[in-house]
Amino acid sequence: MLRIAVLGVGRIGRMHAANIAAHPRASLAGVFDVNEAAATEIAESLATVKFAAAEDAFASPEVDAVLIASSTATHADFIEMGVAAGKPVLCEKPIDLSLERVDACAAKIAGTSVPIMLGFVRRFDIGHRAVKQAIESGRIGELHQLVITSRDPGMAPDAYIEVSGGIFRDMTIHDFDLARYFLGEEIATVTATGSRLVNPALMERCGDYDTVTITMATASGKQCLITNSRRAVYGYDQRVEAFGSAGMITTDNKPLDNTRFHGAGLTGQAPALLDFFIERYDDAFAAVIGEFVDAAEQGRAPEVGFADGREALVLAEAALKSIAEGRTVSTSEIG
Amino acid sequence: MLRIAVLGVGRIGRMHAANIAAHPRASLAGVFDVNEAAATEIAESLATVKFAAAEDAFASPEVDAVLIASSTATHADFIEMGVAAGKPVLCEKPIDLSLERVDACAAKIAGTSVPIMLGFVRRFDIGHRAVKQAIESGRIGELHQLVITSRDPGMAPDAYIEVSGGIFRDMTIHDFDLARYFLGEEIATVTATGSRLVNPALMERCGDYDTVTITMATASGKQCLITNSRRAVYGYDQRVEAFGSAGMITTDNKPLDNTRFHGAGLTGQAPALLDFFIERYDDAFAAVIGEFVDAAEQGRAPEVGFADGREALVLAEAALKSIAEGRTVSTSEIG
Amino acid sequence: MLRIAVLGVGRIGRMHAANIAAHPRASLAGVFDVNEAAATEIAESLATVKFAAAEDAFASPEVDAVLIASSTATHADFIEMGVAAGKPVLCEKPIDLSLERVDACAAKIAGTSVPIMLGFVRRFDIGHRAVKQAIESGRIGELHQLVITSRDPGMAPDAYIEVSGGIFRDMTIHDFDLARYFLGEEIATVTATGSRLVNPALMERCGDYDTVTITMATASGKQCLITNSRRAVYGYDQRVEAFGSAGMITTDNKPLDNTRFHGAGLTGQAPALLDFFIERYDDAFAAVIGEFVDAAEQGRAPEVGFADGREALVLAEAALKSIAEGRTVSTSEIG
Amino acid sequence: MLRIAVLGVGRIGRMHAANIAAHPRASLAGVFDVNEAAATEIAESLATVKFAAAEDAFASPEVDAVLIASSTATHADFIEMGVAAGKPVLCEKPIDLSLERVDACAAKIAGTSVPIMLGFVRRFDIGHRAVKQAIESGRIGELHQLVITSRDPGMAPDAYIEVSGGIFRDMTIHDFDLARYFLGEEIATVTATGSRLVNPALMERCGDYDTVTITMATASGKQCLITNSRRAVYGYDQRVEAFGSAGMITTDNKPLDNTRFHGAGLTGQAPALLDFFIERYDDAFAAVIGEFVDAAEQGRAPEVGFADGREALVLAEAALKSIAEGRTVSTSEIG
Repeated sequence: MLRIAVLGVGRIGRMHAANIAAHPRASLAGVFDVNEAAATEIAESLATVKFAAAEDAFASPEVDAVLIASSTATHADFIEMGVAAGKPVLCEKPIDLSLERVDACAAKIAGTSVPIMLGFVRRFDIGHRAVKQAIESGRIGELHQLVITSRDPGMAPDAYIEVSGGIFRDMTIHDFDLARYFLGEEIATVTATGSRLVNPALMERCGDYDTVTITMATASGKQCLITNSRRAVYGYDQRVEAFGSAGMITTDNKPLDNTRFHGAGLTGQAPALLDFFIERYDDAFAAVIGEFVDAAEQGRAPEVGFADGREALVLAEAALKSIAEGRTVSTSEIG
Repeated sequence: MLRIAVLGVGRIGRMHAANIAAHPRASLAGVFDVNEAAATEIAESLATVKFAAAEDAFASPEVDAVLIASSTATHADFIEMGVAAGKPVLCEKPIDLSLERVDACAAKIAGTSVPIMLGFVRRFDIGHRAVKQAIESGRIGELHQLVITSRDPGMAPDAYIEVSGGIFRDMTIHDFDLARYFLGEEIATVTATGSRLVNPALMERCGDYDTVTITMATASGKQCLITNSRRAVYGYDQRVEAFGSAGMITTDNKPLDNTRFHGAGLTGQAPALLDFFIERYDDAFAAVIGEFVDAAEQGRAPEVGFADGREALVLAEAALKSIAEGRTVSTSEIG
Repeated sequence: MLRIAVLGVGRIGRMHAANIAAHPRASLAGVFDVNEAAATEIAESLATVKFAAAEDAFASPEVDAVLIASSTATHADFIEMGVAAGKPVLCEKPIDLSLERVDACAAKIAGTSVPIMLGFVRRFDIGHRAVKQAIESGRIGELHQLVITSRDPGMAPDAYIEVSGGIFRDMTIHDFDLARYFLGEEIATVTATGSRLVNPALMERCGDYDTVTITMATASGKQCLITNSRRAVYGYDQRVEAFGSAGMITTDNKPLDNTRFHGAGLTGQAPALLDFFIERYDDAFAAVIGEFVDAAEQGRAPEVGFADGREALVLAEAALKSIAEGRTVSTSEIG
Repeated sequence: MLRIAVLGVGRIGRMHAANIAAHPRASLAGVFDVNEAAATEIAESLATVKFAAAEDAFASPEVDAVLIASSTATHADFIEMGVAAGKPVLCEKPIDLSLERVDACAAKIAGTSVPIMLGFVRRFDIGHRAVKQAIESGRIGELHQLVITSRDPGMAPDAYIEVSGGIFRDMTIHDFDLARYFLGEEIATVTATGSRLVNPALMERCGDYDTVTITMATASGKQCLITNSRRAVYGYDQRVEAFGSAGMITTDNKPLDNTRFHGAGLTGQAPALLDFFIERYDDAFAAVIGEFVDAAEQGRAPEVGFADGREALVLAEAALKSIAEGRTVSTSEIG
């Protein structure tokens, strides 16, 4: 049994805690949250202990591994503590909003063999896995164009948006990682376009965008397009299209159920899409825990690690620079 | 140029006339209708002559072939006139509402080599052709079950229903023919169920049904299910499913255009279906004229002939007898 | 915590046991199987006790309720034991292959308030629930035609087929129950057609059919069509179409994942269907346990009970009689 | 009757000639082609006259209007001749490969009231019309993102590619026009990415790209993404997605027919897409002639005119400049 402590028990931390409890070879070793009342409630409802401080989780001999679902500002610190304690870490994205902090963390943990996994859940979706398999098996030939559509069902609360680090670091970061996953080679150039169409006042205030497109290319010329919006009224729009020399494979959205309605003046109407990521990617979140447990047990690097977390941030920085300077940015400029 | 006269210029006759005019090797040789005003108007708008009597069309040396789209009661007479005149005939379904009259007609024209074609338009639909091809090529293996869904977009006027001969002879007859086309062997047994759900008062008065299902089987055990309704609010519902030992092939409905709408609470909504048969089967109607012209030119039997028209009527009789007697009826009982 | 014992730990019993263990308010109280080795293995792997005899489960003060997944011949006995012991029972279909035995059981447990639930899992599928909701809310108007397609991915082993009671009692029984669920009124007439196309020799030997269609009607004229096959090479074909005066709602199949492949000469290709019922109805099986736990806790009748199990058998008997006598059979003839 | 002469009778000119002949209020007034043999053959097969020179068509009193389907280099000259002769002109895209020549032509014809129409056929597709209608009616709210996918089924011959003016002026030009049609406001910025993946050697030699993406934005922030490839093995990939504040509307591809095949290991397989533009846009090409005839009869400007042809070229120039300079280009820089 891998005993995993969960730091941060907001919506996503609780979901992870439930998946840990449901895993046949993992158990929930305790929880911590700066919101003490929340931590108490969750500890009780999940029949586990509450840590007085995050440090206690890392120090406890009853804890084998740590899942970090706390606020972004704590991620790098907790990763460093995990490595120091020799405890495998599964960390939610992003590592940090600042690439400098990420690099400092990287320097500090350089050479460690402690498994560190980044929670890029979409790599573990069964449909995305099938797309990856179609690319790797040669079923679509050489990959030429990758089109990722990712639109949230609705704007997060203002308070969240204000500290999110902006759409590229908060939302597109998943698509950046997915792009790297599918492209199979590093991204050389990034061009981004940003608009303020959903909530212009808020976006103006935050210097952020709610509607963006990103075009990327690898050195060999493979192209990737990402389309993001903070609000799709029909639900959580999550699609991938991989176009190659011998074919195309797509993954489609998931509606609430598989009914289709035909009525006066209309046919084939499906329900709204699953809303939101916890519903859409429920199987994938369970698979994330599965991979983390496997990697921790085997003492090996997980499928998606610290370097992947850093690369996704580099792409976010490049996108910001591209908009600021109105030009295509080379990832080598970011570092 | 095959010069074709059109008898009966109601909605369907006019459509045929336009298709004849558009065919590269056919021309419209004149029209006749008992409604003289209608005949005059059509003759003028299509720049053709108006015959004073149907007999004149058969007698005219300017007429090579005749298309019969007049009222059902005239069909058998006109077929006989066509054969007598040695002019190929394309006749709308059914040959007659009475099997006795059909058999009398058959006796009268026995041995003729004049091409006689029945207007079972659905055989000429590109989708249905592809289903037939999938069956014949072995792509779905041995055919086991055939499911035909056929629902009209709305009830015809009472006056039409009253003289239609009932749903089996008027509407299901197309499905009976399609079943024979796909099954590739004769139908041995028929069981039918009829309900009065759309317009019970009218159905009661006519001794007719507006909602029916028919189950049929061939001697080798192939099964066919037909589902009919006189009114589908979402349009003209026309589907076929051929299930076999090695796979299944279906043809789906045709919406007005290929858009899909996603809105609040719904996704994937297509427009209503093409409504009605002239729109849904427009290419197939043109192909009917094509086959008729080819067969007339070559002096050969068309793909679908008099015997097919009779067999479809036999199945309609069997369905009526099945409901009347609450049992499965053998087609050999009908004759 | 509702402590539930599981009798019979074949494929389906094990799946139920896992769902019980995963339910927040239920626990696995022990298992029994005539195959002692299997029972031992399962008891160990699920960390529960093994009963030496089924009777022990009913007698144990550590058991609050019993799930029956043993062979069909034991079902009625175990239901009677459950009622005698005052323990809620969840019983897999069918109650028995013989309507006489079912009626004897009914007589014996008459008047009991012990919750008895039949495991008609399809009622608990989210798509079927949505269809039911569309019917009840009036979204499709008055229901006119119900079309249920149900094809297994492959023939069960000969040994299973030989004792299954035949396709109507073993396989169609789920469709019969689903038909009753959607129609919302009792079925008055049944007409069936049976063919031997998948494995004629085996079917001949067993007096069974592998390819059947059933047409049913209610007193008010609602029609229901069921299409069954023992083998669909593309997977477990499970579809429902509810057609009404104001529209139509369908539930479609579930492929292995939501990818679509476009290649040379083809487009839109999805993977095979989920194969088989445990995968296709996984959420529904969990919901069955949920309803059983709720009903047991509340001491109320479950959504689907003994009478539903009996009615489905009546329809199976009617179908058999219909084939034997080549006629439409009234359910009132069966009793 | 509007008597229309056709200049250039290659594949597209012949198709236009047939549509003119089929239009109820238009007739084919003659053809011209620099390939005299081709012109003779077409004139004979369509029973029309052959002009010895293009000038003769403009000069003939038997010609009311002219359709230009000759090589690109002749377009601007012929437009000028049409205006000089007071004869309405329908010109295939592009007006010219050089913006200078286009502007010179514009200067020469400035102030004319002779109807000039550009053959941007996609605006006349029924699906695209429905998308436009959804945008204008407010059905999708404010348009935020427009995604146009346009991939040819296969590379044109080398000789064609070499004189095509490059992918942006030859192929993307249709998408540029479609973008302008849907966006409803002028495009302010263009960023393009080009790769050589289908035929790198040829592309290198021509200084062209076979795989491109273009991102564009209007002044108000509406975004448009275009994805192009010179070769999709599954057919002619033509899709549009319009995403707005209140919903999304898409148009999907058109397969050869509406069948779906389910076989061992696969489901829902449709045939390849209609291949190529003459098949995919057949109804739209007929509608182009319809609009041209209407505009000519009414002496009004057609729905899509000279200025639209110029604007599409401006976007092509901007795309080329964007790749050359690795930056986002403002359309105001092009002029």
